[in-house]
Amino acid sequence: MRVLILGGDGYLGWPTAMHMTAKGHEVAVVDNYLRRRLSREEDAETLLETPNLHERTRLWNRKSGHSIGVFIGDLTCWDFAAEVFQKFIPKVIIHYAEQPSAPYSMLRRRAATLTLQNNLLTTANVIFAVREFAPDAHIIKLGTMGEYGTPEIDIEEGWIDIEHKGKRGRFLYPRQAGSLYHTTKIMNTDLLWFYVRMWNLRVTDLMQGPVYGMTTSETGTDEKLFPFVNYDEIFGTVLNRFLVQAVAGYPLTVYGKGGQTRGYLNIKDTMQCVRLSLENPPQKGELRIYNQFVELFSVNELAEKVQRVGNQLGLKVQIRPVENPRKEAEEHYYNPIHQGLLELGLQPHYLTDEVLVEMLETVGRFKANIQEHKIIRKVRWD
Amino acid sequence: MRVLILGGDGYLGWPTAMHMTAKGHEVAVVDNYLRRRLSREEDAETLLETPNLHERTRLWNRKSGHSIGVFIGDLTCWDFAAEVFQKFIPKVIIHYAEQPSAPYSMLRRRAATLTLQNNLLTTANVIFAVREFAPDAHIIKLGTMGEYGTPEIDIEEGWIDIEHKGKRGRFLYPRQAGSLYHTTKIMNTDLLWFYVRMWNLRVTDLMQGPVYGMTTSETGTDEKLFPFVNYDEIFGTVLNRFLVQAVAGYPLTVYGKGGQTRGYLNIKDTMQCVRLSLENPPQKGELRIYNQFVELFSVNELAEKVQRVGNQLGLKVQIRPVENPRKEAEEHYYNPIHQGLLELGLQPHYLTDEVLVEMLETVGRFKANIQEHKIIRKVRWD
Repeated sequence: MRVLILGGDGYLGWPTAMHMTAKGHEVAVVDNYLRRRLSREEDAETLLETPNLHERTRLWNRKSGHSIGVFIGDLTCWDFAAEVFQKFIPKVIIHYAEQPSAPYSMLRRRAATLTLQNNLLTTANVIFAVREFAPDAHIIKLGTMGEYGTPEIDIEEGWIDIEHKGKRGRFLYPRQAGSLYHTTKIMNTDLLWFYVRMWNLRVTDLMQGPVYGMTTSETGTDEKLFPFVNYDEIFGTVLNRFLVQAVAGYPLTVYGKGGQTRGYLNIKDTMQCVRLSLENPPQKGELRIYNQFVELFSVNELAEKVQRVGNQLGLKVQIRPVENPRKEAEEHYYNPIHQGLLELGLQPHYLTDEVLVEMLETVGRFKANIQEHKIIRKVRWD
Repeated sequence: MRVLILGGDGYLGWPTAMHMTAKGHEVAVVDNYLRRRLSREEDAETLLETPNLHERTRLWNRKSGHSIGVFIGDLTCWDFAAEVFQKFIPKVIIHYAEQPSAPYSMLRRRAATLTLQNNLLTTANVIFAVREFAPDAHIIKLGTMGEYGTPEIDIEEGWIDIEHKGKRGRFLYPRQAGSLYHTTKIMNTDLLWFYVRMWNLRVTDLMQGPVYGMTTSETGTDEKLFPFVNYDEIFGTVLNRFLVQAVAGYPLTVYGKGGQTRGYLNIKDTMQCVRLSLENPPQKGELRIYNQFVELFSVNELAEKVQRVGNQLGLKVQIRPVENPRKEAEEHYYNPIHQGLLELGLQPHYLTDEVLVEMLETVGRFKANIQEHKIIRKVRWD
């Protein structure tokens, strides 16, 4: 199938591009290198230098024989979005093209405005471009488990049946997020749901938990094909950050009580989940929602795992609770359903000691690149 | 109190400005005349020519002795927003500054993008400006009953307690709107609720139904102080449009089966509701939500009322059902609660025959201004 990957330069976008070509799909990627620019501006570059998209697609072509089309530009600009959709009329759009960092969105006013504008206008242009140039295409949108927050009732997969005063209705599960970034994802779900109803779009919204890992079947051990790995508090996801801190001999920084619980998954499972969604499209006029994660962990549990396995490797890992710069529940009920992707055939990778060893060893190869001053940022939510 | 009215040129903004000065408040208005520009672009000017804000504030000053400050500019521009808040540090912000038409938001891609950008970025800048320059100020935001859509269960006032699988939680009532405009209002509620939790803002979100009427205690019979009255399908609210159609001898155009039911209110009650909210502010850290309407009517009921009363005045009013250009339920359950504003002291004006007679007579004075070709636009939702 013709698959257009928006945000194809990113942590998940690039591995997805390689994965889809390896599975026989015809792929083009779109990016404006926003994430690279923001990383640089915030003095928060990645663990590895990552070649640009033209260079990486050439490398991947030499290695695998597969080609990937490249469009560089800003999807909040309609002219560009229209040009991309006219030149590469997609059957599937995988939409990762958002400012993806919660702390970045809380950093300052201009960062908040950028997040709001970028994430909303990109999604709107994707909807308009699909309507105009590819009305039957399937939009796979990366949402986030963070849209739900940490409610006191079980989290369903996107929808909830509410019985109220003797009557019943079905609704989008009510959402309440913990950052402006996550709030823009709620808005995007509302925007997609509106146009699904009006224009019979075909949409999958993947409520993904935090992802960890840097290698997939396609990256192999070639570091030039590795995705971005951020280890700073702004752009790094928590487990990746802990792995780098462990290797660097920097104590694992647990926010507050550390009881914050989320659903995690290996980047290899992101590849599977997105592919399974792509190969099993929803009907037109359907907004299908999956909760995309494999296992629940609290931050304390993650820190203890990294400490235990790190110590087995001789790393002398310390854990240091720090004042929580965020406003969030540090101990809470959390019981999200995640059945849909398993039913489609997801074969989960679990966070075993072997996986932790492999990830710590991979990070260890790049220990010389770690700059400790990049780690701690303390972006405060208030 | 120092009251800053955003969108002070609009159908509700201008009458609110006069009303608040009459009640002893110190008022400034902000507008960029966006609504005038869009009306002109769409060949949908108002029934009366409306003097600009400088002129209307001078008129009002001569008539009442009250002054109103005027700021002309675009609140999506941070520089301007910051300047306004620094010069007139408000205790209360009444935020009407949105593209307020559902059909306009569905007209074409650029209109949708304008609606999304204007409504989201203005609200974001209001939040940031309050945080920076007036952290204790009370934001009164005009939401819309349209955020709720037409669910199969009773509509509560903003919040709902959900019992689910043996556990209970309290949530923003789940929303599902019928136009892009209404969807931007959902997004704004989410944005405000997020920053209320993070920054302890003090917010009232008024879920208002369609408003009718053109006169308030302050307009009297001076047409130069009347608000905008649009009678076209793009910017006109349904009852105002029917009144003009009745006077013009143009059949009342009922969409589809006409069972679409909403909660209506007289513009005089908008004045009361906003003032009651202003004079009874919520706590810091509270998002208070009221459902702002007085009576439920179906479109058929409105058409029949206008027909009956119009015929008593000798108007020979016809009703003509037309194909519904919107995607909406034409017959549905609808039971929204509306207690909060009554408890604050709202004295409702009902849609009696006398009120209809008065409104038809008022419109009748301007019959010569009605241009029939402006009425029908058939903006299709698909």
